[in-house]
Amino acid sequence: MTRERHCLPLVRAEIDTYSQPVVFMHQDCHVCRAEGFRALTRVRIACGGRSVIASLNVVTGAGWLGPEAAALSDAAWAALRPRLGDMGQFSHPELPEAASLIRAKVYGERLHQAQFATIIKDAMAHRLSDLDLAAFVTACAGEHLSTCETIALTRAMQEAGRSLEWGEGPVLDKHCVGGLPGNRTTPIVVAIAAAAGLVIPKTSSRAITSPSGTADTMEVMAPVALDTAAMRKVVEAQGGCIVWGGALRLSPADDILIRIERPLDFDSDGQLIASILSKKAAAGSDRVVIDIPVGPTAKVRSENAAEALSARLRATAREIGLDLAIHVSDGSQPVGYGIGPALEAMDVLKVLRRTPDAPGDLRERALVLAGLLLEMSGETAGVERARVLLDSGAAEHRFMAICAAQGGFAEPAEAPYRIPVEAPRDGVITAIDNRLIARVAKLAGAPQQARAGVLLMARPGTLVQRGQPLFEIWAETPGELAYARDFANAQKEIFRIEVPK
Amino acid sequence: MTRERHCLPLVRAEIDTYSQPVVFMHQDCHVCRAEGFRALTRVRIACGGRSVIASLNVVTGAGWLGPEAAALSDAAWAALRPRLGDMGQFSHPELPEAASLIRAKVYGERLHQAQFATIIKDAMAHRLSDLDLAAFVTACAGEHLSTCETIALTRAMQEAGRSLEWGEGPVLDKHCVGGLPGNRTTPIVVAIAAAAGLVIPKTSSRAITSPSGTADTMEVMAPVALDTAAMRKVVEAQGGCIVWGGALRLSPADDILIRIERPLDFDSDGQLIASILSKKAAAGSDRVVIDIPVGPTAKVRSENAAEALSARLRATAREIGLDLAIHVSDGSQPVGYGIGPALEAMDVLKVLRRTPDAPGDLRERALVLAGLLLEMSGETAGVERARVLLDSGAAEHRFMAICAAQGGFAEPAEAPYRIPVEAPRDGVITAIDNRLIARVAKLAGAPQQARAGVLLMARPGTLVQRGQPLFEIWAETPGELAYARDFANAQKEIFRIEVPK
Repeated sequence: MTRERHCLPLVRAEIDTYSQPVVFMHQDCHVCRAEGFRALTRVRIACGGRSVIASLNVVTGAGWLGPEAAALSDAAWAALRPRLGDMGQFSHPELPEAASLIRAKVYGERLHQAQFATIIKDAMAHRLSDLDLAAFVTACAGEHLSTCETIALTRAMQEAGRSLEWGEGPVLDKHCVGGLPGNRTTPIVVAIAAAAGLVIPKTSSRAITSPSGTADTMEVMAPVALDTAAMRKVVEAQGGCIVWGGALRLSPADDILIRIERPLDFDSDGQLIASILSKKAAAGSDRVVIDIPVGPTAKVRSENAAEALSARLRATAREIGLDLAIHVSDGSQPVGYGIGPALEAMDVLKVLRRTPDAPGDLRERALVLAGLLLEMSGETAGVERARVLLDSGAAEHRFMAICAAQGGFAEPAEAPYRIPVEAPRDGVITAIDNRLIARVAKLAGAPQQARAGVLLMARPGTLVQRGQPLFEIWAETPGELAYARDFANAQKEIFRIEVPK
Repeated sequence: MTRERHCLPLVRAEIDTYSQPVVFMHQDCHVCRAEGFRALTRVRIACGGRSVIASLNVVTGAGWLGPEAAALSDAAWAALRPRLGDMGQFSHPELPEAASLIRAKVYGERLHQAQFATIIKDAMAHRLSDLDLAAFVTACAGEHLSTCETIALTRAMQEAGRSLEWGEGPVLDKHCVGGLPGNRTTPIVVAIAAAAGLVIPKTSSRAITSPSGTADTMEVMAPVALDTAAMRKVVEAQGGCIVWGGALRLSPADDILIRIERPLDFDSDGQLIASILSKKAAAGSDRVVIDIPVGPTAKVRSENAAEALSARLRATAREIGLDLAIHVSDGSQPVGYGIGPALEAMDVLKVLRRTPDAPGDLRERALVLAGLLLEMSGETAGVERARVLLDSGAAEHRFMAICAAQGGFAEPAEAPYRIPVEAPRDGVITAIDNRLIARVAKLAGAPQQARAGVLLMARPGTLVQRGQPLFEIWAETPGELAYARDFANAQKEIFRIEVPK
């Protein structure tokens, strides 16, 4: 009966530890004692043909969990999917093959594609701890990935996910190397490209650290959590879609790495490229336009950095068979007026509807990107053709049809609580800090509260007088409104206002 | 009343997450909603003048924690020390200064002492996440720390802790670069040096991944959890002591880094040296002998690696004013007969008591190390003098006096459950795997169960017959005995037995 000794019934801890599986066990439980498990031990749990490796948190009190069961975090529960009363079998995990490969990379060895594939496979099977993953991300950061390795990592990540197929003919895609609030060109670009008769099955992400992702903004106007079959129906009918990529598991490896990369926030062209291009390839696209906003508070901060990133993007795209157009754009200030899901949706709709107050910068950026896509598909004067499709109402018409196909259009609503933030002195606005203004929108509740965010009322170059509103904060509760306002008033550098000489 | 909004009463989660502070909050609590906290967000919690930065785990069910309180893991609770009913104030932490320094190191910059000191300070204040620490450890691994940086890191770690002072005259210390089961020379070396009239205030560690640390073995024979005042009294009376260093906070930075280094297990001479020498300097010693066992299953696996490590140890020790003697020793097999706290204590006592069955290898190793210490203190023929002190009973007498001064001697006891593991075939033993035999001892319960472990009954070079006992497993419960035995019988490579040609 030796085997029986290392079993415990599994219960649900109802604790969200993000994607990191955690198991909670009481210090007095027989499995901990027999196996010598302590806090943070990596523990293998098997149940019904599935297994997961989790980190152990040890319950020391007599409170919510006794020694007669083991409790799984949400991620561990999702990985094992036990039924009521199922027993888990506990053991020490074998050292994953990836561990020695990560070690080799740390020591400066070059890895090839099969080795990256092993690391990705072990990461996806939760065989690597967060520390292992942090070591991998660190070892690949800076200039530590060669172009060959970037290509190998991209392929390994691409092959770890599902790939979509769209038949003959060009399949378009676009991507923005983030960091610019309000830069919500995607719905407009998709509408124009689809109106031109092209195929653009666009998958987008939700915000992770920003006040809104394209999926968050689009969701204000139409459902985005479509499965592959529903997405395919929309694209077959309308040529394009704007859906949330998270449900499609196109690059599940990226979902795992990004959880580690975001908080560490190391600049790493190699990892950025592998992340972007593996997803584009998995989405089945073969022509991609990439927007790289450059500015002191954007993700890419100099023309030189943009040039280096572009060169490696091109080299990697060529290797995996993607046709690439890169647009290096102005990233010195937010785009449009709204920051936050509903506020950005309003800007998008104004551009599509050609209203007099439509934000010109958003419109022009979308036209340039759409023009590049049209040119990659055989048009000669892409931007001109894009402008015609927008101005004629064809893009608006196509966008509404896409929304209807995705489940029905909804008009974005204004937030119930609004308050202006005023200029503290006379002068000319010389800069807006992208990161700080994004922070205000997040404190106001974006993106969880879709109507929360920031409405810009003055832009760089504008002369303002003391007391004149610079922006409005929108919130769904008075508490969040006050909180965002306090932060905005305490930060003097959101808008730089200088006295003209 | 804005400030009030970000407060919640603090309760104790009674969950051990090792030294990593974790806060548990319900997804519906107003603080999570207002601040936009999600799972794994880094959260600053202030309470009564203290603060800690913890990782957030989000409670999603209606079980043990509702939205009206925040629960702290043991480490977070210990850092904040709230009283019953105290409110915690929650906010987003500022980015620690160390983050940009770690980033610089990742990108290949050389750091100097003040920069390492900032990293150590932020780590000790729990301002760095485990991911940050893993990135730092990774960036310093392999050959990534220069000798200058090793010296700088050593000094930064030393200055982050308390230092002991022992007045005039030489203060001795010893250290073994681990990995060799049963290599428990310290009690013997201390007894000999103290019997020679020298000062050797030895602090030792408990096992982290091994079946016993020196503190675990010593604790079988005498109390070891002495505070600085009690330790000083023992040393003043007897010249030496063998106490647990964990209570003295000599290198608290090391305690934090080691938690990350152990699971990653990257070879890093720089970090190893900083860890060892910062503690020796903080303990107030100025002459240190270091034992480096070399063998295929020891920590240091080749003579070349030992030579490189020795060179850098010497350079760093010279800079921080430590006199160093290095002994590169045979690390091909376990030392003595016993593996596990009580079993090793028995070996130590046999050597001190000069019984006929005393393990000769342990005796000789202790004499060499003690001899080196005596020579560093002015003796000419150190080993000869050490032999006299041991053979005359002076060392035994001094050891018993030290035990009495630490709180009283206790004779190690045998475990109640014992079972032999037999040779599977005739042949000659050509090797013992240090790691596997240590694993058996740990599965039997060592070091938590002091009497558990392994008693070796045959050594390399011995001819054995099928069925002859190779070793005995000792355990305190029949379950653990069976568990260790099953593992031992399944592993064919613990003892390599070859047919002689």
